[in-house]
Parts: sequence; C-alpha cells; structure tokens
Amino acid sequence: MTTSNPPRVNAFAALEARASLAPFDYEPVSLGPHDVEIEITHCGICHSDLHLIDNDWQTSHFPLVPGHEVVGTVAQKGSLVAHLELGARVGVGWQAGSCLECEWCERGDENLCESIVETCVGRHGGFADRIQVDSRFAFAIPDALASEVAAPLLCGGITVYSPLREHARPQSRVGIIGIGGLGHLGIRFARALGCEVTAFSSTAAKEQEARAHGAHHFVSSVDDAALKAQRESFDLIISTVNTPLNWKRYVSALRPHGVLSFVGALAEPVSIHTGMLMARSRSVTSSPIGGRAVMREMLDFASRHGVGAQVETLPMSDVNSALDRLRRNDVRYRFVLSRD
Amino acid sequence: MTTSNPPRVNAFAALEARASLAPFDYEPVSLGPHDVEIEITHCGICHSDLHLIDNDWQTSHFPLVPGHEVVGTVAQKGSLVAHLELGARVGVGWQAGSCLECEWCERGDENLCESIVETCVGRHGGFADRIQVDSRFAFAIPDALASEVAAPLLCGGITVYSPLREHARPQSRVGIIGIGGLGHLGIRFARALGCEVTAFSSTAAKEQEARAHGAHHFVSSVDDAALKAQRESFDLIISTVNTPLNWKRYVSALRPHGVLSFVGALAEPVSIHTGMLMARSRSVTSSPIGGRAVMREMLDFASRHGVGAQVETLPMSDVNSALDRLRRNDVRYRFVLSRD
Repeated sequence: MTTSNPPRVNAFAALEARASLAPFDYEPVSLGPHDVEIEITHCGICHSDLHLIDNDWQTSHFPLVPGHEVVGTVAQKGSLVAHLELGARVGVGWQAGSCLECEWCERGDENLCESIVETCVGRHGGFADRIQVDSRFAFAIPDALASEVAAPLLCGGITVYSPLREHARPQSRVGIIGIGGLGHLGIRFARALGCEVTAFSSTAAKEQEARAHGAHHFVSSVDDAALKAQRESFDLIISTVNTPLNWKRYVSALRPHGVLSFVGALAEPVSIHTGMLMARSRSVTSSPIGGRAVMREMLDFASRHGVGAQVETLPMSDVNSALDRLRRNDVRYRFVLSRD
Repeated sequence: MTTSNPPRVNAFAALEARASLAPFDYEPVSLGPHDVEIEITHCGICHSDLHLIDNDWQTSHFPLVPGHEVVGTVAQKGSLVAHLELGARVGVGWQAGSCLECEWCERGDENLCESIVETCVGRHGGFADRIQVDSRFAFAIPDALASEVAAPLLCGGITVYSPLREHARPQSRVGIIGIGGLGHLGIRFARALGCEVTAFSSTAAKEQEARAHGAHHFVSSVDDAALKAQRESFDLIISTVNTPLNWKRYVSALRPHGVLSFVGALAEPVSIHTGMLMARSRSVTSSPIGGRAVMREMLDFASRHGVGAQVETLPMSDVNSALDRLRRNDVRYRFVLSRD
C-alpha cells in the first residue's frame, strides 16, 4: 500500500551547526514501492550524531534530524514489500539504502556501496516519530531482544561485531580499547564469541564494569609500562576511541598475524612503523558498519547469546539533556530515546 | 656422516662497517646431526646485504660474511639428515634455522620463530665456498630452475611471493611498486598467478622492461595526477621500495578490502589516515620472507611457470664491484655471484 498524502513527521532537529535540537516537522516524501514507514519507538544516540550536529565532517545539511539506531514497527509499506508485515518490529542503522546493483552490493558488502544512503546524512533521521527507509535495510528484531537493548546494536553493535567476525575466532585473544558505547558491546560480543578478552581504558574506575561486561583482563590504555608488558599478546585489538594513544605500543601488543582495527573515528593520522608490521606479519585495518547479511547474523547471534547494549533510556523529549551528557561522556553506555 | 676436523671455509668478509669485502677464512663449527654442509655454486646479492655491511640495523658483527641467497650442493650431512642426499642441489635463504618447537614453527610459520637463525646475521653467510645450515632449511631446487635464476628466489622471491599467495587470487588487480630485485619478481609472480598487474616506478624508462616482465600497465610512482587516477583500482599493492612515496595516494588506490603490503624496508614510519581504511575496509600490512612449506610451494610454482630472476652473474671474486654497482642501483635486476 502506498499513500500519497501522509501526515507530517514530528522530529527534533538542529537548525544550525552545534545548535540544541528543537521540535521540527517535515512532510515525508511519498513512499516508494520498496520502502517502509516505521513508527519509531526507540532511537539510540551514537557519538556520530554529535559529529553530524557539529558538522565535524562537513557533510551536514540543516535542519538536521539526527538518529540512526532506530527501532519501531512497520506502519506502512510500499507495493513491492513482501518480507515485512505491517506491525513487524524492525531496526535501521547507519545505512538506509544502497544501489543493490554494484559489485559490492552483489557481494553482500552493501555497506561499501558508493551510492550508500545514510540514515541521517542528507535526509532526516530517527529522532522523530516516524522514518521512511528502503525495506531492504529494515531488519527484523529477534523477539528475545528488547527494543531499547537492540537499538544500539544497529550501529554501535555492528561496528564492533564486523571486525570480530572477520578477524577473531573463539581461540583468539582480543583487546578492546575504550569502554563506551562501542567498547562495552565489543567486550560483550568478544566474550560471547568465546575469545579471551582484555579491556583497555584510561579510566581505572572502569575495571569492575569491564569485567562485568565480560572482560577477563583490564589494562590501563595510558600506562606505558602496563602496555609494554602486553607485548605480542593479542590476535586482534579493536580501538573504539577517538583520541590518540601510543599506537606503537598497541602494534607491539599484537601477536604474529595480529590485526589492529580502528573503528573509532580518529582526527589525526596514525604513524605506523612498517618494520613492526613486517617482523610479525601484523596488519592495521578498519571497517565501516556491516553488510545486510552480517547485520542479520549479528542480531541473531546477539539474541542467542543475550548480547545487548547497557542503556539509559530517556523520553525523546529529553534529547538535549542526553546530548549534553554525551558530550561530557556522562553515560553508561548508550542513551536510547524512547517514545513508548 | 659427521666430521670433526673440517677444512677452513674460504669467504669474503667486511672486517668493519662499510668496508669493502676482503678474503677471509674461518674454521666451521662441527656439523650437527641435522646439519648439512653445502658446497656453494651461486649466491645472490640482496639489498639487505648492504644494510648488514653498513650496520644500518645495528645487528652486525664483524668480520661479517654476507650472502643469504645460496645455491649449491650437499657436500656433507649430519647423522640424522635423511631427506637430502650428498650431491643434491639445494638452496638457503635468509633463514638458516629455527627452534622447530614453538607455536609458530608448529604452525608452519617458521619465519616468525623468535629463535630464528638468520643465515648471515651473527654467523657467516654465503659469500663463501661452503656454508653449514640446518638441513630443515635447505630446500631442494627443482631441476627446471637454473641455479643462478633460483638463488634470488630464496630471499627476494619468497618476500614478494608470500603476500601474493596470502592476499591475491587470479582475479585480483595487483600493483607492484618498484622494479628492482624484489619488484621484477613480484611482477613475474603476479602475472604467473593470473593477476592483472600494474608496475609503479619512478623511472619512466623502465616501462618497457616492466611490460617484458609481465606487467599489463605502467604508472609513474611519483606522478601525482597519474596516482590520483588509480583511485580504487587495486586489490593488492606490494611496495618493494625503501624510499618514501605519497602513501596516501596508494591507500586511495586500493579497492574495497584492498591490502597495501610493505615488503621494502622503510626507515621512516608511514602516516595512515584510519578514515581512509575505514571507508573501504582497507588494510596495511607487511610480512617477512616465508615459512618452509611456502618456500617449497614457491619453488614448485616458479619451476612450473618459469618464474626466475633476471640476473647478472659475476665471479664471486668480483664481489666488491657488484656491491659498488648495487649501491648505485646499477643492476638488472639481481647480481648473482658464481663459483662455477
């Protein structure tokens, strides 16, 4: 069913860079044959929403409705949508569409499509009562996952799950740098995958929390002697932080064939001594979110293993206080806005 | 058979850092039960021999006998050597032994053994009439490979073959930076593996040579506009050079999931923008030589496909003129010293 005259969407938007969000409504485009309209119940707040509001990446257009960890129910669907029923509970992450025809879409790497549609870049996102997306990028949420717990999986979760599934096995020793929105999910996924998990954080007080998430070990991310002692200890280290660290020590901490994956957005380039890569066949890499099949796999794995985000849920009307607190890193570990 | 009182080895040694080589003889240690003594017929000259002579890596002890691309025949063997007959033609590369007991040796990654024995570091190498090595690191040379053609495969060849076998498939688009001792073998191996091969060189005059080695395309490694035009073109780029280039352009030249492997020794660290890795799931890596199984596989593959080094053969007594010319990069593409 398509509708030609939909009601306006009620959202929260930044009207200019770095502004507080204000109520904002807009007329949705008419629903395409493959699209669904989702009645939003929950939307996580990711650090990249702040980057978009602040126009840190020079890609923002204002008014800007952030939000790309959306969970809700299918309220309308286009004429060609067969796999989702009205009322189905679905989630949408950073990606709301792709060309579905290029080499990377064909390979199941839709996240690498050059025509990627980003949920809240150049279009309005999930801090709203409704959103329209290509139904091929709306993923059924398994029953075992509560909506507020599932929402952060759709961006934060897939971001750390992808390098884990690519580079870690149950036998692997995995380090996760940073215990925040991404990092706590990294620890939980790595533990559920059967790995030996070490959490790295600059905040010593987070040790007990890290262990509660599943970390076997805790190392200060800024204690040079402690880092030195980790020499050749890890098959995979995932950095979720956006601040510079002594990366040389982390490369040294990789075992032969070890991989250092940067999923946190770093403003400054990283200086790599290629001789340190050569000596032990080490690699440095990164990846963006994940393709559709990996997204479904991640949700299935998370539901079977009880992996979800630890969240603080606030009414969507409190979005500005949540954003202010996120700017101060005052969150354990993800805010989720609720319209329930 | 072991011998307790062997004749002295006649070699060429640097008596101090940066010195010309001089005739030098030494008493070999007595042959261990797993060792072979090889009567050397040929020894390639690798750029790392110059680094050792110059003590660039602070690992050199003098007198120093360089040489780690050795081909010769088994002249003596220890009591436990069953797999090599006297007179067998064998080769030895950078590695002359390992512990054969650690995790990496057990995995077939003997090249990553922390107790690696390096053929001419802390012991005397192949610019000599004879050498003793652990027979487990003396590799039978296939009949189809002439000794002078095979010698450079044992270090230069394995160094470029390893990342190709790890990261390239016949469908891959491969770039090789630098058309020297390593690079020309990289082009030849990549072509034989079925890849589409692009040679990068700062020397425009090398285009025809690169094509003769098997390159389908040639790009100036220092022409910024030409490099920019290579955006997202390669699944694998192997850098064999030891001078800095605009690495950002080479990262950009990688397709999604593409790998940039640095097998040339770079003195300066490489500055990597992790956002460029993230956007396309790219990796930066390196590796040292290869394990024993990969060495045998490489020799077998090379013999079946007619891949060998293009060499200039000189009598071993001309070693100093070869080294002088190598310092000026005046070689196409590898010197091999001959005692025939």
